[in-house]
Amino acid sequence: MAGEELLVFWIMAAIFGIATVIFTLLSLRSGIDEFLSFVDILVAFLTTISYVLMALGFLVVNSSYGEPVYWSRWLFYMGSCSLLTISVAVILRKTQTVTMAKIPILTMVVMFCGFLAAFITSIERWWFFAFSSIAYLALLITLFQGIPREGINARLMWFIIIFWSLFPVVFILGPTGIGFLTTFYTVLLYAVLDVITKIIYGLLILFQVKKH
Amino acid sequence: MAGEELLVFWIMAAIFGIATVIFTLLSLRSGIDEFLSFVDILVAFLTTISYVLMALGFLVVNSSYGEPVYWSRWLFYMGSCSLLTISVAVILRKTQTVTMAKIPILTMVVMFCGFLAAFITSIERWWFFAFSSIAYLALLITLFQGIPREGINARLMWFIIIFWSLFPVVFILGPTGIGFLTTFYTVLLYAVLDVITKIIYGLLILFQVKKH
Amino acid sequence: MAGEELLVFWIMAAIFGIATVIFTLLSLRSGIDEFLSFVDILVAFLTTISYVLMALGFLVVNSSYGEPVYWSRWLFYMGSCSLLTISVAVILRKTQTVTMAKIPILTMVVMFCGFLAAFITSIERWWFFAFSSIAYLALLITLFQGIPREGINARLMWFIIIFWSLFPVVFILGPTGIGFLTTFYTVLLYAVLDVITKIIYGLLILFQVKKH
Repeated sequence: MAGEELLVFWIMAAIFGIATVIFTLLSLRSGIDEFLSFVDILVAFLTTISYVLMALGFLVVNSSYGEPVYWSRWLFYMGSCSLLTISVAVILRKTQTVTMAKIPILTMVVMFCGFLAAFITSIERWWFFAFSSIAYLALLITLFQGIPREGINARLMWFIIIFWSLFPVVFILGPTGIGFLTTFYTVLLYAVLDVITKIIYGLLILFQVKKH
Repeated sequence: MAGEELLVFWIMAAIFGIATVIFTLLSLRSGIDEFLSFVDILVAFLTTISYVLMALGFLVVNSSYGEPVYWSRWLFYMGSCSLLTISVAVILRKTQTVTMAKIPILTMVVMFCGFLAAFITSIERWWFFAFSSIAYLALLITLFQGIPREGINARLMWFIIIFWSLFPVVFILGPTGIGFLTTFYTVLLYAVLDVITKIIYGLLILFQVKKH
Repeated sequence: MAGEELLVFWIMAAIFGIATVIFTLLSLRSGIDEFLSFVDILVAFLTTISYVLMALGFLVVNSSYGEPVYWSRWLFYMGSCSLLTISVAVILRKTQTVTMAKIPILTMVVMFCGFLAAFITSIERWWFFAFSSIAYLALLITLFQGIPREGINARLMWFIIIFWSLFPVVFILGPTGIGFLTTFYTVLLYAVLDVITKIIYGLLILFQVKKH
């Protein structure tokens, strides 16, 4: 039935709202890195706003399969994922000025092209999917070039590469792509990925990753 | 009568246009802080553009009371108010990298949610008013935590807290909220607040606030 | 015939796509400045995306002459031209924090007002053309104040001043202005200017301009 994904959106808004509160409380503990903590809080907060906006259901286009596509998600990722990729660079100590400029710029290009690919419902969307993928590869190279193959940094690298790369897979399988998944299951999978890449990642960088 | 607020917009465009010229002339004087002077000029210039755009009257939604809401104001505040909050942080010497990143990001979240709250004319707008208010509180805490209760910095703090907090009060009273004020009086009150928080503030930071 | 400019857009998308690949290959050579190289690649890449988007032909308004105006160009310039002006500042060693903040902000104001001037098809567009011109003058002054009248930096200055200033000339002559040029010739002239100010400039700063 059309619109059953809205329930998922409200549940996710609640989960990310609670995550915002928890990350805020955690930021008051001693020994917590101020910048990583701010990224966790703000990413959770932006994702809450994004889910409420999707739950209201008016920022939507109809795909060629007649299934709705919630395109506003990708515009919010321009902000939240830029913060996340900067946090990865900070943890990996890739904090040269040029790198710190490249990373959010590339992340915004990835997500903006993702927005175009989601918003354009005709076959031309694949142009922007391709542009987004190219920028994503450039982003991964910038972030992870020269990272040793073992240790905590290597685990962080694989965490990011695996779970972030599942987003375009869902994009291809859902109504934005071949239409194998309905909007409901697409939304559900994005929700799981959002929890992993934003809340679980957020907890990991606060407690597991070596302080720098 | 519908549209009488357009006259206010043109008058304000003229006032902020003149303010842009005056701040530019003042920037040529010796002993003027280059950054604070740039903030004053650019904020006045952006506000001029914003008022001309509102005066043209095509970026408008009709509220549930049938009164027009000029929503583009909040998008311009994303730029101008970020510059203003950064200037506050510079004056208060809160120039650690993390703080300097937090302040414009939080300001943009405040104003973007304000835009959503103004643009959405149904009851759901209060979600975004609430999100905007939460980000605003986080912004005030980031800016003013640890500021002494007396002296020039305390006066600056109260100036910001009092006059900036009147914007959401007008929002609640106007057609974006309970509809107690008509569009005309809402626009008039925002105009007064814009003069106080941008032109008078701009003069104060150039001449009154201790050089740093 | 309406739409013949679309062929120009596809050819330009191909040219800038090839330029993206060439600048990427050049970045692998030793002795290449990492930041300037990144600017070249990303500007070429953003311009490719911009031309594909224009070639699809749905981001268009009809001017008062009945000729189409492709307004999305100016929004992409907000990103690409900010990178270009920052690269100019880096080459001229104008890298004080305040200058580095002023330059992209002014560039974005220039291009955003240019977007408004292109998007608004009524006579009111000249307001935004005027605002854009004022910000452009402020940008040129910020970039080039105090540059010696001879040598490589002076040549760079005149290159920028001459070729960037031709954009508003085309704007005035085309369907966004007096309508002397049709959309096709407007698009063709912008294409030539894009090649000069982005590809030729990109090669010049990599190979001709003194390393810093």
